[in-house]
Amino acid sequence: MPKTVANTKPMDVLKNALSRNVLIDVKGNREYSGILEGYDVYMNVVLQNASEIINGENKGVFDRILVRGDNVIFVSPSKGDNE
Amino acid sequence: MPKTVANTKPMDVLKNALSRNVLIDVKGNREYSGILEGYDVYMNVVLQNASEIINGENKGVFDRILVRGDNVIFVSPSKGDNE
Amino acid sequence: MPKTVANTKPMDVLKNALSRNVLIDVKGNREYSGILEGYDVYMNVVLQNASEIINGENKGVFDRILVRGDNVIFVSPSKGDNE
Amino acid sequence: MPKTVANTKPMDVLKNALSRNVLIDVKGNREYSGILEGYDVYMNVVLQNASEIINGENKGVFDRILVRGDNVIFVSPSKGDNE
Amino acid sequence: MPKTVANTKPMDVLKNALSRNVLIDVKGNREYSGILEGYDVYMNVVLQNASEIINGENKGVFDRILVRGDNVIFVSPSKGDNE
Amino acid sequence: MPKTVANTKPMDVLKNALSRNVLIDVKGNREYSGILEGYDVYMNVVLQNASEIINGENKGVFDRILVRGDNVIFVSPSKGDNE
Amino acid sequence: MPKTVANTKPMDVLKNALSRNVLIDVKGNREYSGILEGYDVYMNVVLQNASEIINGENKGVFDRILVRGDNVIFVSPSKGDNE
Repeated sequence: MPKTVANTKPMDVLKNALSRNVLIDVKGNREYSGILEGYDVYMNVVLQNASEIINGENKGVFDRILVRGDNVIFVSPSKGDNE
Repeated sequence: MPKTVANTKPMDVLKNALSRNVLIDVKGNREYSGILEGYDVYMNVVLQNASEIINGENKGVFDRILVRGDNVIFVSPSKGDNE
Repeated sequence: MPKTVANTKPMDVLKNALSRNVLIDVKGNREYSGILEGYDVYMNVVLQNASEIINGENKGVFDRILVRGDNVIFVSPSKGDNE
Repeated sequence: MPKTVANTKPMDVLKNALSRNVLIDVKGNREYSGILEGYDVYMNVVLQNASEIINGENKGVFDRILVRGDNVIFVSPSKGDNE
Repeated sequence: MPKTVANTKPMDVLKNALSRNVLIDVKGNREYSGILEGYDVYMNVVLQNASEIINGENKGVFDRILVRGDNVIFVSPSKGDNE
Repeated sequence: MPKTVANTKPMDVLKNALSRNVLIDVKGNREYSGILEGYDVYMNVVLQNASEIINGENKGVFDRILVRGDNVIFVSPSKGDNE
Repeated sequence: MPKTVANTKPMDVLKNALSRNVLIDVKGNREYSGILEGYDVYMNVVLQNASEIINGENKGVFDRILVRGDNVIFVSPSKGDNE
């Protein structure tokens, strides 16, 4: 079996998700879902129209939010919106 | 579909928010809202007329405050004030 | 006894697990199991069809998920799927 | 609207506060207020005549104290003493 | 008294333990014991036939497991197996 | 008003405290007081005749102790012993 | 008064303690006491015949143990064994 299986670079997941809906899971039982407007190599992310959910409860919407990368647990492109 | 979707650099969110109202969410159930006077690459931020909210309770106002970047969870330009 | 015992590089465990099932154990009593699609030197990992288990409870499936490396406790190729 | 809004460097807040009263908020519900005698790029700070407040309770005064930067949450020049 | 007492390099403890049984103590009341298959300078370790013990309770065996180094508290070659 | 107010380098506080009594406040409600014998740029400190106080209770004296810098909250030269 | 007071380098405390008894205090209410066999610049330490004490309770002895440096709170050469 050949060893050259493709390796998707993690940062490409963010690149491909630009201008699409993503879910950002953040330390402290927080989630932010919105349109990914930008990111950098530290995994700092910028979302538009971001809903904030803390402990499962909807806390409101931010027009624009910059989440610091070292709080991120995971990023997932939303179902049906992932190419 | 072209892959060259725009990527807003997270630091540009801070740059564009200079001299405008921002909300800084900080570890330990703290929030600081005020006018963004400055920032650096470590996400250290300087606010003017910053209201401090701890556990949802208003704790007062600081003329000027320097928040150390590694405590920051997110920064959001205030609604209606984001260009 | 010779001292030149083989040393499997930890990153090669990830390389060999590409396109196979892995279990990712994450801080905060979380587990993600799915097909390893990619990784990088920070141990950021990309999974496809990832089941999320929090405190032993199945929370659903993500089509694609990027888990930030510094949350990872361990990665294990699934039994029977490890070459 | 021009984009060249002034950006106050966070370290300049410390520079301008030298020999003035500051409040240092520190992890673990601690506060130190005193005269800022020095600082460095790691946000290590030196205070003179520093009052220590833990969980809102005054614990005494230190002639001189060096607070390690990575414990700092924020630094604020005292009201009326800023500029 | 001469000052040139031998200094065993910590990484050599891992090197000498390759292909032998080791106990890995991990943050969060976890232990993993198995055959050390590999390691790197970050103290990431690869174990074969690794038993997982959480809070003193045996949780099962992994054919192969990669434990991220920054979770490690200590590594100890098993008694009688240390050369 | 001139801007060239003196800035005491934090490390100079340690330098000036050499061979004098200091109080080291450490994470986890610990304090160590003793004679400062040495330090380095990581704020690792060496004390002689160090009393250990945990949760306000005296736990004994160490002839010599090396405290790892990243546990340090603050260092204060003892009153009356500060030049 | 001259300023050239001797500064014992913290790493020299470890160097001088080689092949002698030391007490290693570790995060999570753990202590390891044994003969210091080695160390490196990250404060990773190797002990021989190391007794493990957790929450004040003796948990047994390890022939050899490598403690990862970032868990260390302090290292102290045992009384009467310090040169």
